[in-house]
Amino acid sequence: MAANVARRLKPLFDRVLVERLVAPQKTKSGILLPESAVPALNEGVVIAVGPGARDQAGNLIPPSVKIGEKVLLPEFGGNKIKLDDKEFTLYRDVEILGVLH
Amino acid sequence: MAANVARRLKPLFDRVLVERLVAPQKTKSGILLPESAVPALNEGVVIAVGPGARDQAGNLIPPSVKIGEKVLLPEFGGNKIKLDDKEFTLYRDVEILGVLH
Amino acid sequence: MAANVARRLKPLFDRVLVERLVAPQKTKSGILLPESAVPALNEGVVIAVGPGARDQAGNLIPPSVKIGEKVLLPEFGGNKIKLDDKEFTLYRDVEILGVLH
Amino acid sequence: MAANVARRLKPLFDRVLVERLVAPQKTKSGILLPESAVPALNEGVVIAVGPGARDQAGNLIPPSVKIGEKVLLPEFGGNKIKLDDKEFTLYRDVEILGVLH
Amino acid sequence: MAANVARRLKPLFDRVLVERLVAPQKTKSGILLPESAVPALNEGVVIAVGPGARDQAGNLIPPSVKIGEKVLLPEFGGNKIKLDDKEFTLYRDVEILGVLH
Amino acid sequence: MAANVARRLKPLFDRVLVERLVAPQKTKSGILLPESAVPALNEGVVIAVGPGARDQAGNLIPPSVKIGEKVLLPEFGGNKIKLDDKEFTLYRDVEILGVLH
Amino acid sequence: MAANVARRLKPLFDRVLVERLVAPQKTKSGILLPESAVPALNEGVVIAVGPGARDQAGNLIPPSVKIGEKVLLPEFGGNKIKLDDKEFTLYRDVEILGVLH
Repeated sequence: MAANVARRLKPLFDRVLVERLVAPQKTKSGILLPESAVPALNEGVVIAVGPGARDQAGNLIPPSVKIGEKVLLPEFGGNKIKLDDKEFTLYRDVEILGVLH
Repeated sequence: MAANVARRLKPLFDRVLVERLVAPQKTKSGILLPESAVPALNEGVVIAVGPGARDQAGNLIPPSVKIGEKVLLPEFGGNKIKLDDKEFTLYRDVEILGVLH
Repeated sequence: MAANVARRLKPLFDRVLVERLVAPQKTKSGILLPESAVPALNEGVVIAVGPGARDQAGNLIPPSVKIGEKVLLPEFGGNKIKLDDKEFTLYRDVEILGVLH
Repeated sequence: MAANVARRLKPLFDRVLVERLVAPQKTKSGILLPESAVPALNEGVVIAVGPGARDQAGNLIPPSVKIGEKVLLPEFGGNKIKLDDKEFTLYRDVEILGVLH
Repeated sequence: MAANVARRLKPLFDRVLVERLVAPQKTKSGILLPESAVPALNEGVVIAVGPGARDQAGNLIPPSVKIGEKVLLPEFGGNKIKLDDKEFTLYRDVEILGVLH
Repeated sequence: MAANVARRLKPLFDRVLVERLVAPQKTKSGILLPESAVPALNEGVVIAVGPGARDQAGNLIPPSVKIGEKVLLPEFGGNKIKLDDKEFTLYRDVEILGVLH
Repeated sequence: MAANVARRLKPLFDRVLVERLVAPQKTKSGILLPESAVPALNEGVVIAVGPGARDQAGNLIPPSVKIGEKVLLPEFGGNKIKLDDKEFTLYRDVEILGVLH
């Protein structure tokens, strides 16, 4: 599903399209958690990346994350967008905190 | 219609003239939706582009979108303008989120 | 008239002297419109231009509009000035939205 | 009088010392106008200029106005100073709108 | 424990992952202190570092602290994050005050 | 007196140490003026200068005023300091309006 | 004492570790002054210095003060820190007003 979106949208400049991961709604023993009890995960997967932005010296600096990488996201920031009724978030490369292995 | 406008206005610097797409006012079964129920689409088509802006090193950086491309627009920003009684929006190249295929 | 003013004032840096166009006060059938009903046009004609401003790399960048060109103006901004009892507006080159053909 | 002041004060950087012109206090038929009715003129004469300021690339950019030139002044800005009990205004070169011929 | 986290998260740009040191909860004579009486230490250990950030001239400047170094932290700032239920703080290299020997 | 201070303090960067001149407390006919009636003079003498500051291109730009010069001061700004119980003011070179001859 | 601290903390970037001098608590005739009557001295001694910071052109600019120098401090600014129960203040090199001889 996300892969199709990736082909649909080419982010511009140093923008990175991310699909946020959602914490499991069930406990390990299978009990369904109410939405309010589900902690928001600050993690996501990179779906698409822009070409990058220019630094002060005029060089084009490619984004520092790659498609498919799992990333640690800031608590705030990013543009929420909808593509084919699915929610994604567009971050600037410099907003993303780190890559998770 | 939009093509005539394109010939009338030459945006300056890194400005991009966009015609915002309007969501269909009817449901698939043809029922006319009240305006309030019609969600604003954050999509549009590029009608005209400026020459671009200079980066800090003095190089002229052409805009990253082309005439005719379908683009993903930010929720806010842009200058609303009227040309020949038709509404368009002028964005800075860097405000446009991505190109839609 | 405007041409004389053009010879009187040499704008400095990247400033552009513009005479704003006023919408016709009469309807097509000749009825005089009250001033409040006359929409402010965001269009004007370039009367005089400065030499331009320096970019970050120290190069002098000439203004992007020429004397006599019809231009699309922003809703806000510009310095209102009076020359020989006639009203003009001084814009920075970068404030002007586009050139109208 | 102003010439003596010019010799007394050497403005620094891109500062320009201006003596603001005062509108005639009398009507053409010689009637003395109350001060409140005398419109403030946004015009003045350049008395002295500094050496100029450095641009981002480190080059010294001389001021764009010369001693003796008549200039169009902004409505706000400038440092009011007194020299030998006479009032002058110090502007930054970039604040001055244009040169009047 | 912290070492595993270090392998899990690769900070981006000039970010530095730090584990804050906690002051001893017991007095030297072994009495357990209430949490409120335990002073927050502004010291921590570097767990992982990013590649660094670009300066204005476009050069990549590596971070000035190394993994394992003990560092003096500012009172405010930093992003609190949780990795495997353990709390860490992400600082920008330039926020860290000094290295403790 | 000021000369001793000059030897005591070496200002840093583009700072300039100034001793503000005080207007005569007596009228020409020798009558002592109350302090409130004594106009604050915006003039002072340069006591000591720093080495200067770096411009954006990295060049060290020496201060534009010299020890002993009489200078025109802005109404606001500057750091008031006491050295050997005497009051001086430290300005940034760029705050000083001009040199008085 | 301060020398040990100097070996313990290596300030980062253009930070300078300073031990503020305290005015004598006794009058010349030996009377102990209440703390409120003791004027805060804006003077201190440099205990340790960082490597310096990069200017806009990417050059590393070493700090302009040296260990052991007596310095004139601004009224505000600086980070108060405790090392081995002793209070010090970390300044940015550019905050320090001058060197006292």
